[in-house]
Order: sequence, then C-alpha cells, then structure tokens
Amino acid sequence: MAPLNQHFRILNTDPESAARCGLLSTPHGQVLTPAFMPVGTQGTVKSLTPDTVKALGAEMILCNTYHLYLRPGHQLIASLGGLHSFMNWGGPILTDSGGFQVYSLGKLRKITPEGAIFQSHIDGSRHRLTPELAIEIQEALGSDIMMCLDECTPYPATFSEAEASLSLTLSWAERSRKARADSSPQALYGIVQGGMYPDLRKRAVEAIAAMNFDGCALGGVSVGEPKALMEQIVAETTPLLPADRPHYLMGVGTPEDIVKAVDCGIDLFDCVMPTRCARHGLLFTNTEKVVIKNARYRKDNGPLDSECDCYTCRNFSRAYLRHLYVAGEILAMTLNTLHNIRYYMRLMEQIRDAIGCGQYAAFKSRFLKDRQRVET
Amino acid sequence: MAPLNQHFRILNTDPESAARCGLLSTPHGQVLTPAFMPVGTQGTVKSLTPDTVKALGAEMILCNTYHLYLRPGHQLIASLGGLHSFMNWGGPILTDSGGFQVYSLGKLRKITPEGAIFQSHIDGSRHRLTPELAIEIQEALGSDIMMCLDECTPYPATFSEAEASLSLTLSWAERSRKARADSSPQALYGIVQGGMYPDLRKRAVEAIAAMNFDGCALGGVSVGEPKALMEQIVAETTPLLPADRPHYLMGVGTPEDIVKAVDCGIDLFDCVMPTRCARHGLLFTNTEKVVIKNARYRKDNGPLDSECDCYTCRNFSRAYLRHLYVAGEILAMTLNTLHNIRYYMRLMEQIRDAIGCGQYAAFKSRFLKDRQRVET
Ligand SMILES: [Zn+2]
Ligand SMILES: [Zn+2]
Repeated sequence: MAPLNQHFRILNTDPESAARCGLLSTPHGQVLTPAFMPVGTQGTVKSLTPDTVKALGAEMILCNTYHLYLRPGHQLIASLGGLHSFMNWGGPILTDSGGFQVYSLGKLRKITPEGAIFQSHIDGSRHRLTPELAIEIQEALGSDIMMCLDECTPYPATFSEAEASLSLTLSWAERSRKARADSSPQALYGIVQGGMYPDLRKRAVEAIAAMNFDGCALGGVSVGEPKALMEQIVAETTPLLPADRPHYLMGVGTPEDIVKAVDCGIDLFDCVMPTRCARHGLLFTNTEKVVIKNARYRKDNGPLDSECDCYTCRNFSRAYLRHLYVAGEILAMTLNTLHNIRYYMRLMEQIRDAIGCGQYAAFKSRFLKDRQRVET
Repeated sequence: MAPLNQHFRILNTDPESAARCGLLSTPHGQVLTPAFMPVGTQGTVKSLTPDTVKALGAEMILCNTYHLYLRPGHQLIASLGGLHSFMNWGGPILTDSGGFQVYSLGKLRKITPEGAIFQSHIDGSRHRLTPELAIEIQEALGSDIMMCLDECTPYPATFSEAEASLSLTLSWAERSRKARADSSPQALYGIVQGGMYPDLRKRAVEAIAAMNFDGCALGGVSVGEPKALMEQIVAETTPLLPADRPHYLMGVGTPEDIVKAVDCGIDLFDCVMPTRCARHGLLFTNTEKVVIKNARYRKDNGPLDSECDCYTCRNFSRAYLRHLYVAGEILAMTLNTLHNIRYYMRLMEQIRDAIGCGQYAAFKSRFLKDRQRVET
C-alpha cells in the first residue's frame, strides 16, 4: 500500500519544538493542521447544523463507525449516497474503527483473535466486529480517513497483557491493510498501542511504520492513566512516528493537552469535551471557568467570553444563557455548543499562527500560564 | 385611553369574505397581517436561534408572562434592558397576560375577584396575579402588545357560570385599562370571553369595544369544545368586533383553523402546535401527514416537503430526519421546528397573497380540499 499521493504536506516547522503546520488533502477538501475534529457520533455534531459547524471554522469532523453501523446501518447510508450526503457535510470526515466504543462497552464485549464480539447498547443484539468488517463499514460510509480496528489496551495493564494486546492490534492492522480496496481514495491510518510501556510503544511504532499507512495515530491514551503519564507517552512516542505522515492523537483532549501535544508533533485531535461540556453548561474561556448555571451569572449582562467572536458571545448575555440552561431550553445546548466549538477552533487557529511565525514556544508558555490562572 | 396612533391599518379587504390584510405598527417594527406568532414561552422559540426565527419569516413572536414572571423574573429582565434585549429579538413581541397559564394549572389555582392565586409549577411557591400586576409585568418586560388579564371560561360551563366568569373578565379589563401607564408606547388588547353562548359573546364584545382597546382578542376557544362549536363562535363573534382594530384569535390553531378564521376577519394567531408537533416528530406538509419516526421513511431519500424552501427541506432527506429523531438527537428538534414554523409562515404568506389579489375564497376552498386529502 503506497501512501496516497500528497495526502499530507508539511508547511512549516517550529524552530524550537516538534510542532508543525501541515495540509491534509482528502477527496472532500483540504484541512490545515494542527486540526481539531468536532465529534459527530451519530452523523451530527450534537445540536448544531452542518452549516453552523462549518461556519465555526471546522474543516473536518469525526463520525463513529460503531454507532452508525448499529443505527441506521452502513448499508442504508451507502444506499443513500454515503455519509457526506446523508448528513449534508461537504467537508472531510474521519471515521474511527469502532474499536474504542466496543472497548468502552466493558462486560458487553469479548475480544477474540478473529475480532470483537459485543452486544448493542441499543437493543442488546449480538455483533462481531472484525478488522475486515470495520474497513467494509468505513468504505460503505465513504469517509475520507479510515482507522484500523485496534484493541484499546486498558489502564492499568501488566507488561505481558499490554504486549499480548499490542500483538493483536498489529495483526488486526495488517488485516485492515489487506482488506482495504486497492483503488480506494480513502486514506487509512494505523494505530499505535502499547499501553504505558515505552518499549512496547517503540515496537508498535516500528511495526505500524513498516506497514506504510497514510497516517499514524496514538491510541490507548486518556483511558484513566494519570495526566503526567499520558504526557510522557505522547512526548516519547510522537518523535518516533514517521515524520512525513500525519500524527493523530485519538480522543484528546483539554485545551492544555492539545497545546502540549502539538509541541510534540501531533497534527490531529478529536474529543467530545467541547460538545459534552457544553451540554452540561461548562463553557471554555481563557479568563474564567464558566459553570453557567451558577447564581453569580443571574444578573450578568456581559458576554460569555469577551474575546470570542461566536454568535453566542456576540448576541447574548451570561444572564440569558444561564436562564436558558436553568429552564432546560434546547437553545441552551445549541448556543453553548456553538461557543465551545468556536473556542477550540480559535485555539487551533492561534496554534497554527504561532507555528507559522516560529513563535510556538512563547505561545505555549503564555497559554498554559493564562489557563493555570483560570483553573485555580 | 385613545388607540395608539395608527397601531393598525387595513390594507386590503377580500370582496367575498371578511378576510383582510393589514399592517400593525409597533415600537419594534411592523407586522403584516394576517400573521402567525411563533410561541417563545420562556424567552426562546424552542430550539431555534432568534436569527433563524426571523429568517423563517416570523415578524412577531409571543412570550408568556406567567413563565417569565416566575423565571427569571420580570424585574431581572427589566434590569437587563427588557425582553427584546434579553433574548436578542429585535422585532415586535406580544405578551399574554398569564391568565391562560394560570387557568391551565387546574387545582393549583383559585380565582377571587381581586385576582388569581396560584402555585408555581416550578417550585410550588404561592403567587397572586392581579390585573394590575399583569400590566406591571408586561410593562417591565417591555413587550409591544400587552394583553389584559382575563378568566378563561372552561368548557363546558353553564350559562350562569359563563356569565359570572365574563363579569369578572370585564371588571379585570377595566382595571387593566386603568393600570396601564398613560404614556406607554405598548399597545393593550382586551379579551372577549363569554363561553359558548352567543348572547354572552355579544355582550362581551360590546363591553370590550366600549373600553376602546388597541386590539380585540377572542379568548376561551380551543379549550376542549368540539371543533364545529369553536368555528361557530369565531364566525359569529368576529364580525361584531370593531372593524378598525386588529382581531386576535388566541391559541389557535391548525392550518385549517387559521384559514377558516381568516375568512371571518381574524388578523392574528398564535399556537404551540408547529413547535410542539415538531418536537414530537409530526411534520406539516400539504401532501402528506409525516410522522417522521415511521419505518416507511427509513430509506426515503427525498426531501421532507418538496414544496418547502426551508433549510431542512433543502438540505436533508426524510431518511436522515428519521435517523436523527429515532437516535434522540437535538438536531432533530431544531430541523423539525424549523420546517414546521416555515410551513406556517408560508401559509400566512399565501393567505395574504390570496387576500391581496381578491382570491381568498378560491384559495380557502382549494386549501381545505388539499388538506382533507392529507388527513384521510
Ligand atoms: Zn463564544
Ligand atoms: Zn421545510
């Protein structure tokens, strides 16, 4: 499998760190990196129209293979023209493999060498997800970037558990590579597992690099380990990845996580944090931690975030946002999500600008200092 | 109380019916009538941004005094600059008096000559709503059109019950008129009650007309009576209303109800039907009754309503709308509401066009025939 022609091109590198700006090219358009993908689990970024998602600055979104396979079904989506058409999203889509969702099912799943056997969280029906099926589903959905099925190594895991799990992931990666249609315009990324063991991570990188995927992902982080351990794994593993391929840190994370990981050379992120926090009334700003239901916002006629240019911040007061949230109005979800996604998009713009002008180290230290004030 | 200068001007009258087109002028702009007001109970048309509501063609919305009085409180809203600013709706707002919501509380309320004593549906706290307080609240909110507090006569009611209830409503109307600030730019409408008794309705109209309100509303319909009875009351009472004042039929109704009531000379409508039905997946079209969760739409790649120009119909298939609804996605609420409101707005545009060219009778009979095919 040769890498897709010019799937990824590096535009700038930061002189003082491993941070870099790049350009991903996909059948549905280009994506400037570092990029954050809002999560559209069931074929919608929760509470937002696709037009709004685009207007917020998102260039690529992530959709979940597990959810769309179960409902409404990949074959149905294929018969209606594919996922882009189904959800009316014209830009690039990355689909995960379903591996992480199956992992999250806990007792409802069983892993065998052949694949993962699991019960649907919707109706309890039994399914078997193999590497081949994960590719088949993603090809039917027609995403721009597919992910290999992997086994997410739990935390904690002994060395031999992590090693066995890694072997499985690597054999599934090889099977995924073979299952993919030769003429496919869809990129396929391999996933580096290995738990919290640097030796295993190194071994994983070498094996995945040898399989020549279009991109490399770090998986199995942010699964319950201490933050410092996650940062260490990212810092040690990312430099080992093939430099000419996009580096994707799966399921991460907070604004601080992102800023630090970019420093290590990560190009792609996804996380439910901005959307899920929004629905719980937790709103991101660089000056204050806003829990919008708090009584202190009852009479607050100021904007949610005076630095933000989003529709919510330009048009509504904190007092109104609090009222909507307390009253259980659907519009609260929409306006909050809109702001949080825009916060993440602005962060990525700032990150790319800082790399572009060779000032990433300064940006990073200022940002982390500002945010520290927010959190304390 | 003199009528506000040119609050209402009649533009056209239909030659074959009592239907008319008019122009309402308010401190926040003008409204072409017949008009339908989407309901924004708690200071938001559920699931839509105010920008979207405006883009759908709505010129005026209705907000509920009862809800906003209880949460977040009219004084809070006043201190933040009034309801228009609070919810970022720049157009006209009509506020009801709270009478109907209190009536709907059933056992949680008690009516005395002084006013209504009720318990909050939110926290059980006790409140007394008088005609004077209803005006005070609406003046604090700063709506463009205020309604007098009335007692909604239940159905069924004996003649003497309805008569006693009417007396109360008329005495409250007189108190409302006196309570209103002399210099107020806000219009005030009186409400005609009288139950299902033509004699009482006639007496109510005469008394309300004598009080010289800026507009006249028909209340106490659509409270459980047979449809034919409602139509009869509207048909008999509307012609008695002062012809130079706007006629508002409160809380009505279905598309058919509206088309028939316009024929009798009604100018203003409000109803939760388009928004509430949308949230239950019941979608209006002129060709088909769409219950979007139905399995028949699973593979339906066509638009919800091929006649509709709304964002939902232009961008998504019935299959996708069904998926969103079945998956419990918030976007389902937004897209469905957007369509139903647009359906009502298009209906009002068609009604005004038909009156404007003197073809209302033909429009009405064609519309009712088409819709009959839909319902059967
Ligand atoms: Zn914002
Ligand atoms: Zn539509």
